[in-house]
Amino acid sequence: MSSISLSQLLNTVADAGVELFRKSSVKKITPVMLISWCEELLSTAGEASGITLARQIVNGYAALSDNEKLEFFRTLKSSYEVDIDKIVQFANDFHDKQDGDSYSKLFAAVESKRQEIFRRINQAPDGISTLVSMRRDLLRLQREDSNLTVVEKDLAHLLHSWFNKGFLTLRRIDWNTPAAILEKVIHYESVHEIKGWGDLRRRLAADRMCFAFFHGTMPDEPIIFVEVALVNGMTESIRALIDSERNELDPAKADTAVFYSINNCHEGLLGIPFGSFLIKQVLLEIRSEFPKIKTFATLSPVPAFRRWLARASEDLQVSHVTDDEQKILELIDEPQWYENKSTAQQLRPILIRLAARYFLYAKSGSEPYDPVARFHLRNGAKLERINWLGDLSPNGLKQSAGILVNYVYDLDEIVKNHEEYSSNQKIVVASTIKKLARKQSGQ
Amino acid sequence: MSSISLSQLLNTVADAGVELFRKSSVKKITPVMLISWCEELLSTAGEASGITLARQIVNGYAALSDNEKLEFFRTLKSSYEVDIDKIVQFANDFHDKQDGDSYSKLFAAVESKRQEIFRRINQAPDGISTLVSMRRDLLRLQREDSNLTVVEKDLAHLLHSWFNKGFLTLRRIDWNTPAAILEKVIHYESVHEIKGWGDLRRRLAADRMCFAFFHGTMPDEPIIFVEVALVNGMTESIRALIDSERNELDPAKADTAVFYSINNCHEGLLGIPFGSFLIKQVLLEIRSEFPKIKTFATLSPVPAFRRWLARASEDLQVSHVTDDEQKILELIDEPQWYENKSTAQQLRPILIRLAARYFLYAKSGSEPYDPVARFHLRNGAKLERINWLGDLSPNGLKQSAGILVNYVYDLDEIVKNHEEYSSNQKIVVASTIKKLARKQSGQ
Amino acid sequence: MSSISLSQLLNTVADAGVELFRKSSVKKITPVMLISWCEELLSTAGEASGITLARQIVNGYAALSDNEKLEFFRTLKSSYEVDIDKIVQFANDFHDKQDGDSYSKLFAAVESKRQEIFRRINQAPDGISTLVSMRRDLLRLQREDSNLTVVEKDLAHLLHSWFNKGFLTLRRIDWNTPAAILEKVIHYESVHEIKGWGDLRRRLAADRMCFAFFHGTMPDEPIIFVEVALVNGMTESIRALIDSERNELDPAKADTAVFYSINNCHEGLLGIPFGSFLIKQVLLEIRSEFPKIKTFATLSPVPAFRRWLARASEDLQVSHVTDDEQKILELIDEPQWYENKSTAQQLRPILIRLAARYFLYAKSGSEPYDPVARFHLRNGAKLERINWLGDLSPNGLKQSAGILVNYVYDLDEIVKNHEEYSSNQKIVVASTIKKLARKQSGQ
Amino acid sequence: MSSISLSQLLNTVADAGVELFRKSSVKKITPVMLISWCEELLSTAGEASGITLARQIVNGYAALSDNEKLEFFRTLKSSYEVDIDKIVQFANDFHDKQDGDSYSKLFAAVESKRQEIFRRINQAPDGISTLVSMRRDLLRLQREDSNLTVVEKDLAHLLHSWFNKGFLTLRRIDWNTPAAILEKVIHYESVHEIKGWGDLRRRLAADRMCFAFFHGTMPDEPIIFVEVALVNGMTESIRALIDSERNELDPAKADTAVFYSINNCHEGLLGIPFGSFLIKQVLLEIRSEFPKIKTFATLSPVPAFRRWLARASEDLQVSHVTDDEQKILELIDEPQWYENKSTAQQLRPILIRLAARYFLYAKSGSEPYDPVARFHLRNGAKLERINWLGDLSPNGLKQSAGILVNYVYDLDEIVKNHEEYSSNQKIVVASTIKKLARKQSGQ
Repeated sequence: MSSISLSQLLNTVADAGVELFRKSSVKKITPVMLISWCEELLSTAGEASGITLARQIVNGYAALSDNEKLEFFRTLKSSYEVDIDKIVQFANDFHDKQDGDSYSKLFAAVESKRQEIFRRINQAPDGISTLVSMRRDLLRLQREDSNLTVVEKDLAHLLHSWFNKGFLTLRRIDWNTPAAILEKVIHYESVHEIKGWGDLRRRLAADRMCFAFFHGTMPDEPIIFVEVALVNGMTESIRALIDSERNELDPAKADTAVFYSINNCHEGLLGIPFGSFLIKQVLLEIRSEFPKIKTFATLSPVPAFRRWLARASEDLQVSHVTDDEQKILELIDEPQWYENKSTAQQLRPILIRLAARYFLYAKSGSEPYDPVARFHLRNGAKLERINWLGDLSPNGLKQSAGILVNYVYDLDEIVKNHEEYSSNQKIVVASTIKKLARKQSGQ
Repeated sequence: MSSISLSQLLNTVADAGVELFRKSSVKKITPVMLISWCEELLSTAGEASGITLARQIVNGYAALSDNEKLEFFRTLKSSYEVDIDKIVQFANDFHDKQDGDSYSKLFAAVESKRQEIFRRINQAPDGISTLVSMRRDLLRLQREDSNLTVVEKDLAHLLHSWFNKGFLTLRRIDWNTPAAILEKVIHYESVHEIKGWGDLRRRLAADRMCFAFFHGTMPDEPIIFVEVALVNGMTESIRALIDSERNELDPAKADTAVFYSINNCHEGLLGIPFGSFLIKQVLLEIRSEFPKIKTFATLSPVPAFRRWLARASEDLQVSHVTDDEQKILELIDEPQWYENKSTAQQLRPILIRLAARYFLYAKSGSEPYDPVARFHLRNGAKLERINWLGDLSPNGLKQSAGILVNYVYDLDEIVKNHEEYSSNQKIVVASTIKKLARKQSGQ
Repeated sequence: MSSISLSQLLNTVADAGVELFRKSSVKKITPVMLISWCEELLSTAGEASGITLARQIVNGYAALSDNEKLEFFRTLKSSYEVDIDKIVQFANDFHDKQDGDSYSKLFAAVESKRQEIFRRINQAPDGISTLVSMRRDLLRLQREDSNLTVVEKDLAHLLHSWFNKGFLTLRRIDWNTPAAILEKVIHYESVHEIKGWGDLRRRLAADRMCFAFFHGTMPDEPIIFVEVALVNGMTESIRALIDSERNELDPAKADTAVFYSINNCHEGLLGIPFGSFLIKQVLLEIRSEFPKIKTFATLSPVPAFRRWLARASEDLQVSHVTDDEQKILELIDEPQWYENKSTAQQLRPILIRLAARYFLYAKSGSEPYDPVARFHLRNGAKLERINWLGDLSPNGLKQSAGILVNYVYDLDEIVKNHEEYSSNQKIVVASTIKKLARKQSGQ
Repeated sequence: MSSISLSQLLNTVADAGVELFRKSSVKKITPVMLISWCEELLSTAGEASGITLARQIVNGYAALSDNEKLEFFRTLKSSYEVDIDKIVQFANDFHDKQDGDSYSKLFAAVESKRQEIFRRINQAPDGISTLVSMRRDLLRLQREDSNLTVVEKDLAHLLHSWFNKGFLTLRRIDWNTPAAILEKVIHYESVHEIKGWGDLRRRLAADRMCFAFFHGTMPDEPIIFVEVALVNGMTESIRALIDSERNELDPAKADTAVFYSINNCHEGLLGIPFGSFLIKQVLLEIRSEFPKIKTFATLSPVPAFRRWLARASEDLQVSHVTDDEQKILELIDEPQWYENKSTAQQLRPILIRLAARYFLYAKSGSEPYDPVARFHLRNGAKLERINWLGDLSPNGLKQSAGILVNYVYDLDEIVKNHEEYSSNQKIVVASTIKKLARKQSGQ
């Protein structure tokens, strides 16, 4: 490397860019080459030509197959092991001296050189996107090789720090947003699929809002977004919100904002908690623009309900289902059961009661079994209402038995609710739901 | 805290904002209060009301006196000590298990909770500025209490990661830049003082350029900036560049870009290496806009020259000064000596020769004694020329005996030069300077 | 009116805005009311509350029916007649005095007060859009009442002055353009229909370009736009350009830019010559971004060809069609004739020859019969090639018999060609087309 | 010209740009050349190469001397005379036919070709600035040759139409405004001189506001701007507002906005009424941002007071000055008279009374003698208060005898006041001023 000049590199690598690696005339980038560039990034030469090297790695990584990525990450793992003896020695040194120098040494001993490699890759244009992709790949590949978890943790730590709330900007998404970003919104929406540009446009109508967090270095990439409907009264069903025939409401007359879809856009950012900030900041935005809106609620799926239901017979303590009810419950496996009035009528009281019990008693550890419930309750929301036949999409039926629920965010209660939930494991629900849950089977 | 609602907080703290803490009616924020808020930031309640708490801390910190800051940081130090036993235990655990879980535990054990506190403070508007101020304060205060170094290291680590090159944007500063930013350029320029708006305007004329790095979260704060003059031939003296009477050159006709002033703007970011990136990126910018420019050079001070000179008599090995010369050298203490032709004539050959020796032989450890030389040589530049009476400002005379030098950045040599310097401790200089340095005294 | 205060007006009209006029509770705006507001706009009170009045007119006009508009314009016509006697008197005065005062009086006498009304309407937000709509309406309504032409001319004169090239900005339309603008591009494209967002996206791919003129006061409204394809060699058929399966070309490798669709977006701006400027400015833009592009050509319809063909039998002098050929020509009325190989083979030589004659000899006054030919030839282009079966869309068959042609814009010839055309009525065509036109029937 | 191609032109003229005309190697542009280009602009060739020609004219005009400009405009005058016979003929034609065609002909006959030349010059980059400069020059040069008034009127008519309120945008000027614009604010302020950047910065402090109108084609050129102070109670003296030592007020606590300086920036736009719109739009802006502000007032000079005073002895009817008073009045010619307590005490009642009479009775035609009074009263303001020793600047003493006055803009009275003034010639003043004016001399 030392014999290649920076300008040569800039001419051959940077300008030619990604192209370089796609042309048959250029020899294939291998994991070994990538590792050697990473090594160089850490070296003295790396200081002078860091950006160019980082660019090579960014471009090279994009062209690797999954097997090659596996090899690349395995080498990253094995080549930059932390030295346990050193850690112990430096820990003791620091204990004795308590000075900055020994503290830095201890810290450096624990922080694998991988983190410095990742930080330097970040110097390249698109470096951050590559790192996000790498983490996505690692989350997938570590299922094949659990050794990679250590590498994934390094990356996770950095991304967690870099995608700190302080570096995110809230931006409104509307019909004046560039098409390139709107296209991504269509792509990333996974709760209630957006069926083309016509559907999107309706979701950006005057009585609809969409907000996303963006990161300064990825200005065209929404990180997480939420779709909101301004309505009168809490909405019960998703169809009422995204129907193509619905009438627009004058937003100045709405009294309720319904958050009906929240989507994380990047698997590589899994576990970094954006959602809670997003909801609260959007809530404040809406409140300041539309002071007449008094209720802030979600319209949320119950994604683990039927999974739990399938095992409810085993979990009689929780479910309290009679044999008769059990038979009725089997009707739910019939296709289009909800269109059969009698079936629906029979199922309704049983499923609603079971849903109430599910929220209050079904647990995963000390928290609710339902992941969406865990998210909103931890954020300080209250489970307000269970809506029968709220979502008749295939997915909605399969996961939630067609049920949707409303969580309510009350600014005056958020901190208290959050405390109750976090410190006392209390599930904050409306009294009607509590009552439902206490009902005996057959009542 | 738990009994205060988020909306109450928002109303009382956020909206009232900084004001709150400046009014006599509100009780004084104490270090103890700040610490309790930091503690809360880490708690479960902190999750729900993090931004509000962070805001309180940001506002509160700004109002502390130095003594109170000292107390605040001391408590931060003592309250969040890392647990050495745990580190040793987790290190051994990780050694045995090699899994992600034990790795995370080890990492968490070494990373003081302070870092998480700082990350959460960053969620507040202006959080990042506060953290940069905190580090500036810590660098000052640790002279009084060396225990604070540990806290400073935590902050340094975070800032290093957050001010990664990948998060910096190069922006041109010119006469269309907002006055609020230009005012800061005037303020932060410390190499060659900018004497008001007229002087600034001349430095932004058509044959002048100024570039700065900005961080996404501080859009109005230059991080580091460089001033460049487009000229014909390498410039010898600073007066030629900033004189109020000079004639403008058609920039399309320049053959040389002279980087005559580089300024770091924030003490709190000390030690984070922006300068090297800035010079190279600006160089590429200029090359692409003005392809006729072939030479990229600095016009740099020699800030440690006279300090070294004062001790040169003790360091005869390096200085080789005869007694006669020593006497002449004393003339340099006379005021305005450079206006006395005979004095200047006598001093010139001696000082030039000594400067050459100074660059080649005077060391601080294995590196050059001169800090500016260390910076540019490490970046891959070459010391090209020593300029007699290049800077007659009081500071230029006091530190550099009026001497300025040119370092040249040649894109085809940067990596090689950097290698020579870093790996072989070689000082890359023009042969004329080498010859000067080899001259015997009296020659 | 004079008893209503500005603030009252602002509160009742402006803030309530358009709403006011849509609510049943508010009495219907009538043409008489509009006229009274126009009158007031001209009065002294109008000076003080001009913007509010203009706003009322803008909102009120939007709610009128066609009959009401007719009434409104008729009154505008009759109420602000110019006074012929005064004109004659002032003309003579000016002749005698030759001073500025009498000149202004003459000018003012000829310029109907309507123009001042229109200028004041323009003070309202959206005033300009309203004026453009008014002219569109006038162009339609003057077919019913030719008296309105005078009003239309007033408006045309103002719009011509306001949409001066100096007030238009060229902007690139691409996938980063706001969806609200892209939607309008889809809507306004009438040469080669854009079939939804997928089609649009392909027309904005890396080897495609789209440019539009915008006016400062209507930042979201393209005025005219052109779609360009970067290709190798002049394209013969529209399908090759807009096919959904086509392969993208690396734009850096293209040698030809094909302008395949130019669209005026606003009927109300009919007759204001944007197209010529647009083509030339886009040509310069492309040339500066892609210096390898040497040929700038259009792919254009021949919209009056079949209309002329239908009368060609009457115009034997020009068409020279034999009886046998005449019979073959009738085949063109069969549906899908172009898919019948034998039919197509028979028609081809005859239609191509006739097209050549059409371009060279068919006239409307002293200019070519074909409107697109008139436009491009006047701009200084040259008719380069006639393409058989270039456009098989229903419209393309119906108007152009499936023929498309290429006009070439050669920067070194534009002024000369334009001169030849304008001063000498010369049709600048390729020699091959000249030869074709000279061919005898049956050859 | 016709033999020069567009691309040649573009290469030789446009790219070389202004430079071309400043170099000695290029032959001097003469008025004759300019005229020939104007002629060409109107010709058929002009259609094809209009922008290039316009550019030549723009660049060429900038290099003319005053004498050459005079020659240029004289030729413009004589070469494009309107044809009186044609006007009379077309007027009669239109009278008979009443159709659009004859209307257009009449209009075209009256509108000199000069207007079309000016419209085409506007197609050049900077065309509009050139036209504004031309009008400024014409206003000056017509004093030498009154024949030019006709040309000036043509230009005035176009600029009036183009600088229509609908094309102006209000922008806030603050410390984040580009320095290039702020520099112009310093330059254009002529009411109360801005003494450098420090003074400017104080005028942009938190309790100060500055707003300007901008035109879309001149984004860096303020057209007119107003400086506003947010204060408590109407301010009496200018020193209180621009003093370098004053304390900033929390703007949220202000109850009054004082418009203390309005400046037109371009002489070439003289007579186009921006000021009235500016004041009202700024007033609405401030009201919406600071709802607590109840009073909107000016602090205005009385620029013709001393001119009138000098003649007041002749105008005894109006002034009612006794001989004793006349003697006292002579003290005003002593330098620094206002610092002499006794002088000031003697002068005060007399001057205040005379000022009151001046406002109520001194006339220029049917309007007030004072130009600033004419402007504000016509806008619907009310003269509220006369302030003794409000402006002790040399200019303030020389023109206004140190007096400043407050006009008050009350949104609920503006239309009524304007009507009273315009229709009934009523001077709307506070009753205290009325009383003062009625006072007998010596009282």
